Amino acid sequence: MSGTMTTENLRIVSLDVKDIRFPTSLGAHGSDAMHTDPDYSCAYVTVKTAKGDEGHGLTFTCGRGTEIVVAAVKSLRNMVIGQTAFEIFKDFAGFWRSLTSETQIRWVGPEKGVTHLAVAAIVNSLWDLWAKLLNKPVWLLLADLEPEQLVSTIDFRYITDVITKEEAIEILKKAREGKEERIQDLFVHGYPAYTTQVGWLGYSNEQIIELCQRYLDLGFTFFKLKVGNDLKDDIRRLELVRNTIGWDNTLAVDANQVWEVNEAIEWMKELARFKITWIEEPTSPDDILGHATIAKALKPLGIGVATGEMCCNRVMFKQFLQADAMQYCQIDSARIGGINEILSVYLMAHKLGVKICPHAGGIGLCEMVQHLQMWDYICLSGTREGRVIEYVDQQHDQFVNPTIVDKACYQAPRVAGYNTTLKQEAIEKYEYPNGSEWESMYQKGLFHDPRKLY
Amino acid sequence: MSGTMTTENLRIVSLDVKDIRFPTSLGAHGSDAMHTDPDYSCAYVTVKTAKGDEGHGLTFTCGRGTEIVVAAVKSLRNMVIGQTAFEIFKDFAGFWRSLTSETQIRWVGPEKGVTHLAVAAIVNSLWDLWAKLLNKPVWLLLADLEPEQLVSTIDFRYITDVITKEEAIEILKKAREGKEERIQDLFVHGYPAYTTQVGWLGYSNEQIIELCQRYLDLGFTFFKLKVGNDLKDDIRRLELVRNTIGWDNTLAVDANQVWEVNEAIEWMKELARFKITWIEEPTSPDDILGHATIAKALKPLGIGVATGEMCCNRVMFKQFLQADAMQYCQIDSARIGGINEILSVYLMAHKLGVKICPHAGGIGLCEMVQHLQMWDYICLSGTREGRVIEYVDQQHDQFVNPTIVDKACYQAPRVAGYNTTLKQEAIEKYEYPNGSEWESMYQKGLFHDPRKLY
Repeated sequence: MSGTMTTENLRIVSLDVKDIRFPTSLGAHGSDAMHTDPDYSCAYVTVKTAKGDEGHGLTFTCGRGTEIVVAAVKSLRNMVIGQTAFEIFKDFAGFWRSLTSETQIRWVGPEKGVTHLAVAAIVNSLWDLWAKLLNKPVWLLLADLEPEQLVSTIDFRYITDVITKEEAIEILKKAREGKEERIQDLFVHGYPAYTTQVGWLGYSNEQIIELCQRYLDLGFTFFKLKVGNDLKDDIRRLELVRNTIGWDNTLAVDANQVWEVNEAIEWMKELARFKITWIEEPTSPDDILGHATIAKALKPLGIGVATGEMCCNRVMFKQFLQADAMQYCQIDSARIGGINEILSVYLMAHKLGVKICPHAGGIGLCEMVQHLQMWDYICLSGTREGRVIEYVDQQHDQFVNPTIVDKACYQAPRVAGYNTTLKQEAIEKYEYPNGSEWESMYQKGLFHDPRKLY
Repeated sequence: MSGTMTTENLRIVSLDVKDIRFPTSLGAHGSDAMHTDPDYSCAYVTVKTAKGDEGHGLTFTCGRGTEIVVAAVKSLRNMVIGQTAFEIFKDFAGFWRSLTSETQIRWVGPEKGVTHLAVAAIVNSLWDLWAKLLNKPVWLLLADLEPEQLVSTIDFRYITDVITKEEAIEILKKAREGKEERIQDLFVHGYPAYTTQVGWLGYSNEQIIELCQRYLDLGFTFFKLKVGNDLKDDIRRLELVRNTIGWDNTLAVDANQVWEVNEAIEWMKELARFKITWIEEPTSPDDILGHATIAKALKPLGIGVATGEMCCNRVMFKQFLQADAMQYCQIDSARIGGINEILSVYLMAHKLGVKICPHAGGIGLCEMVQHLQMWDYICLSGTREGRVIEYVDQQHDQFVNPTIVDKACYQAPRVAGYNTTLKQEAIEKYEYPNGSEWESMYQKGLFHDPRKLY
């Protein structure tokens, strides 16, 4: 700690939260079978120390509903204000539990839905602050923590039947060999990405072919298509994609929770001939046993089950992993209770031999999750084999330090923090409902002015 | 429908929501291992038709956090205003899905946490309105619906692998025999209750003995004790209770989610000698596989597992039932998405042979759940054998038509509606943060005035 990092300097004196919405529904970007008109948004948290250091954290949302998450952040805010940054980091698991188990608020969760998203936004802002105070990107902060320190950020409540704190420390200690080489390798080669950009529902044939070609030219070898609205149309689009990308490239599909358990199995049997690596979110994100049934039925067809972007906490992930219900674990960097809880999922997945292929896209998900997956490569799994991070080329220019993907690989972030600081201009334009772009869109009649509702 | 029930008369013209909090933390009432200082509260919804008919619905909360649920109700409110009551009831499942799957808000759930509690409060107000328009208590409204009508209120999405709409109709049709006799029987005998009143953590020995004696005198034969903070103390209190109530009465314990999976098994082995009927909420409410492990281990000791009061939706209940993870299904009338979704849980539990023993207490839970359990007796299970409704004698006097328990039995409600209308006086006193009792408690220094926080 440098001389200027006194307790008083590091006291958190404010926590601000903003509702930021981008009007992505206008272009049908990000549309899927269940979320037909998302306006990519976030609840954006800024914590500030007495000295003036700032941390920025967010949780991703889809437009309406962001205001509820903002209300939840405000309800938790006075548990953060007045705390000293490094006191939090010394017992981060304890602080995390104080937020997730606030004795009265807990009832309206617990550890799920709006309140847990609010915790994620707050906790992520604290990790950004921590990394900035140490002048490191988050992935390097994580990689530099001793196993005991890293594990001290995790609440092991309810997961000790799969992994204990002591086991986690052992695993991390064993994984240290070759760490420095992997860091150097990351700087050179980055981390492989796949694209979902070629097949949102609502895109035309021409758009699909053009996008496949564009991402092939960019070096992508792994493509994902949205399915589940209409079987005939899925077959038509999959033929289109396979004809364009060929049969050596990897192809996955995503149903965004639209099916019943048995329906998922029947539908995927019809699509299996397109050589599908995984079916993502075949049914309810809460249905562990349903996913296990689907996974068992599709295994002989060479299709794995992928899910996790809406899995609500470590207890649910634990069971998906225990039940062989996910072959690809898709952690989401803006959901569950922030980095602290996501680390516990990485540790459980590692112990149970399941690959993590993170969900990304939305707002800031690519920016954040690259740090976690790079930490996994350096400190836990030690390999990138069969692992890949989703990449969606949207809204990155809203950030001061956007994700950089080159030759279909995420490049290791070099600036301090979690890459979650929005440009001041983005905030001024897109803060909801008063941002300048929103004012202009109300004027043009593109959106209803919500301030006129009641 | 009477002549005055025109479409225009029945249009819903307003939806109001209030944050109502009772300062129960002052008396340590309702304290448990996880929720140490609850202020029993609710988000209280009033819908009003053009003609002036009102429906009242609520979801139970524990104090802080109610304001977040209130924000969520406000976010959903314009999906209700402008609708016509009987149009909603004609396709109640469709309307229910429009609320739970609002294309943007869904992301911050889905079907769990704050947004789902908000749906519950809204939906419950609509059932109250429906029953009042027909001048029937809700249990009789339910009992009078034809099987096809009743089932049309339920969204079967994600549960068809356990029960389909067609199967549900068949089950209900078969259960009709003897219906009228059971209605008459209910009017005479009511529905058996059990008491949790004898053993909140924080009560003294003398209080416990005195309360056991009082509830014995009132005719109770089923008692429940909070456990899980300290094994020695649990043993001391269980001895105290068994010595007072004897060995022929039924005794259950409740850990309120405080244990790890293995810890629950070890702890309960120590308590088994007190002849425990069920251990309630041994661990995380999300841990289906953990509960299944506990249930398997405790079966030889004659102890069943009970859970459900914080189970977040029908998909989770489905799995608890499929996995043999709950021997007693404790639906909570204020949680999951209101009556519509709770009905689906009753149907699944019936099909899979699991008894429902509802959670109650809090604010309005007894008032509401008696209707559902009485409907089950009349129209579904046809029996009260081995079934019992929790009863906590608190806050009933805040309601215009409180639950009546006599000779340890809930008496069949006779007034129209869902018994969820709060007295005007209760609202004036306890609306948060401006109610007159709150003002007075700030003055006395019993609570901090939250309006002075920021």
